[in-house]
Amino acid sequence: MKNIKLIIEYRGTAYWGWQRQNDVMTVQESLENAISKLTGEDIKLIASGRTDKGVHAIGQVANFKTESSIPGRNYKFALQEYLPDDISIVDSEEVDIFFHSRFDAIGKVYRYRVYTAKLPRALYREFYYHYSYDLDLEKIRQASNCLIGSHDFKSFMGRDCSAKSTIRTINSIAVERDGDIIEFVINGQSFLRYMVRILVGTMLQVGSGKIHIDDLKRIIDGRKREYAGITSPAHGLYLEKVFYREKHLDNGNRIY
Amino acid sequence: MKNIKLIIEYRGTAYWGWQRQNDVMTVQESLENAISKLTGEDIKLIASGRTDKGVHAIGQVANFKTESSIPGRNYKFALQEYLPDDISIVDSEEVDIFFHSRFDAIGKVYRYRVYTAKLPRALYREFYYHYSYDLDLEKIRQASNCLIGSHDFKSFMGRDCSAKSTIRTINSIAVERDGDIIEFVINGQSFLRYMVRILVGTMLQVGSGKIHIDDLKRIIDGRKREYAGITSPAHGLYLEKVFYREKHLDNGNRIY
Repeated sequence: MKNIKLIIEYRGTAYWGWQRQNDVMTVQESLENAISKLTGEDIKLIASGRTDKGVHAIGQVANFKTESSIPGRNYKFALQEYLPDDISIVDSEEVDIFFHSRFDAIGKVYRYRVYTAKLPRALYREFYYHYSYDLDLEKIRQASNCLIGSHDFKSFMGRDCSAKSTIRTINSIAVERDGDIIEFVINGQSFLRYMVRILVGTMLQVGSGKIHIDDLKRIIDGRKREYAGITSPAHGLYLEKVFYREKHLDNGNRIY
Repeated sequence: MKNIKLIIEYRGTAYWGWQRQNDVMTVQESLENAISKLTGEDIKLIASGRTDKGVHAIGQVANFKTESSIPGRNYKFALQEYLPDDISIVDSEEVDIFFHSRFDAIGKVYRYRVYTAKLPRALYREFYYHYSYDLDLEKIRQASNCLIGSHDFKSFMGRDCSAKSTIRTINSIAVERDGDIIEFVINGQSFLRYMVRILVGTMLQVGSGKIHIDDLKRIIDGRKREYAGITSPAHGLYLEKVFYREKHLDNGNRIY
């Protein structure tokens, strides 16, 4: 029995999110089908976490158990012909049999891409949130500083989230601007449902003057979803990296 | 009667090229439908030239005549709600009534994007040609220098092209590398059908050692399609800019 870890990139546009569901196509089902065709086994993939409908990934991590003799590092090549064009394997390796993509994850990085010009761009439609307001980057950075750290993020949680505790820790938020593009890089231990998108929506509304920076503390303390800003749309969001404790399980960009 | 000039961006993936055809959707038809809905008139769009099935554009130029009182610069805003997500207007303006997007064009820039890493990337599939060979950039640059200037490009013409003369002038070819990405920026007066894609395919094969640099002159002089390299696929190609003689008709990035 081998335990195979995959690092996965996908364009979320055509999928109803990561997690397998009845009647609609998901990334998990598409990947499980591909691996099953390759190995001839029923495959159950365990991911670092779900991604919602329309969300992209550059570095999603998932693992599966198999009796196949295919070497771990070969899956990234062998799966190509079984996968649709919008899912690709960044890397693959055999890992410790006890490695679990979700339980062992100790942190994640999400990237959120925003295009701020007045007019939309056809080539950006699936990949950037078009938010065409004049933005005060200094205010956005102030807002991001208020959000870093351990807080009760209940105001930033989707209403259908069933998490027991709503306390989460954000390690860092980088706000990068390049012309009309603004990217948020959010590093945290774990996240509530829709939390990244509500954080970004709120920071954008601080930047455009719709939410006052002084209200942010009240929004956090209020612990009600309606206090925070908009949920920014799924198509700007990318799961970029998942961190694991063990060095040999780290999602790095190693060369084989 | 007004003559309106549009600069257009589109993702070519879903279209059978620019030019209107029976039974299949084209960029021209989609745009004409949108303008007709906005103005209430039958609209005939004249483009700087066709683009083939799957080819993208960042700066296609087209013009149309209208009796509508809508100011020229307003079309870029007003057309948004009538256009599909994969077509956008970069700019619009009223121009001289005699301006003709095709006859008045004096040059074009095409960009061709190549991704050269061993494994494909899901997020690049529609936008980069995945050509995973080790490439000698110096050889590619030497090849590009052989192709610049006025030549008979019959060897670089698709077999179904009906051009009377096969002599064309390439003003410049820039080859830009950024990690695993190589981009070709080809500036010429006009191009034969598939010419840019065959030029790029041939340069890539020089870079990967499949075609020897010393054979390039013979390929040009041979005037037969089978002498040149592969036709690189449509999805890596972008019509980036169209040049016009008159300064006020130039496809620039002006701010209104």
